[in-house]
Amino acid sequence: MRYLHTMVRVTDIDASLRFYRDALGLELLSQRDYPQGRFTLVFLAAPGDHAAQVELTHNWDPEAYTGGRNFGHLAYAVPDIYAACQRLLDHGVTVLRPPRDGRMAFVRSPDGISIELLQEGVALASAEPWASMPNTGSW
Amino acid sequence: MRYLHTMVRVTDIDASLRFYRDALGLELLSQRDYPQGRFTLVFLAAPGDHAAQVELTHNWDPEAYTGGRNFGHLAYAVPDIYAACQRLLDHGVTVLRPPRDGRMAFVRSPDGISIELLQEGVALASAEPWASMPNTGSW
Repeated sequence: MRYLHTMVRVTDIDASLRFYRDALGLELLSQRDYPQGRFTLVFLAAPGDHAAQVELTHNWDPEAYTGGRNFGHLAYAVPDIYAACQRLLDHGVTVLRPPRDGRMAFVRSPDGISIELLQEGVALASAEPWASMPNTGSW
Repeated sequence: MRYLHTMVRVTDIDASLRFYRDALGLELLSQRDYPQGRFTLVFLAAPGDHAAQVELTHNWDPEAYTGGRNFGHLAYAVPDIYAACQRLLDHGVTVLRPPRDGRMAFVRSPDGISIELLQEGVALASAEPWASMPNTGSW
């Protein structure tokens, strides 16, 4: 038995690729349209860790996506949490829970999926602008 | 960068362990109480695939968990989808989308988290009771 993926639904593929690929740093593995079912499937994964994937389902007929409290978040370890958060900021993503502790951060996807970033190994030394950056909203 | 886990919130740890461990077949990796935060964290993973985990968060102060359409499901490959679904049935779990095609099934956790099971490799030959088992609800 092995884990394959977590599937989330997205309203806008371009906005989702900007978030998951460009800002978060996942790698795009495949993108395929299914005209008969009127949906598109996009698979991404962390570079060098393609076994565990995230599947984006885009239904062509518009739906409004709300979150539910039963789902919490997806978590990724990153080699440099400050660099990861800077890349998110550079792409206009709000870091809801900045890595003040050099260890943990939270952001949300355009459709409200919460993503946790954890520093690989030991926490980084305290550094600005992170150390004094306040929380924003919930995650 | 590497995938760590998907976190879901659970109302009842015992019911969740019956589902995720006993019925679905994941392995319990750790269970730890955090009295100061009033929550318990449980980590599980597929046997032999501990890198990709599922984290159950149980908040001691009761919350009602509803689902949201932005989250879809968690997916696992299994070596024998009929055996996996039989084990779920034996534990009282309804197989919402039975593996009529010998390839794919869906169930839901006690808190409404949708789980997809996919046959590893090629689809199994058509077999009863699966081939004629109807769908139940949504997933």
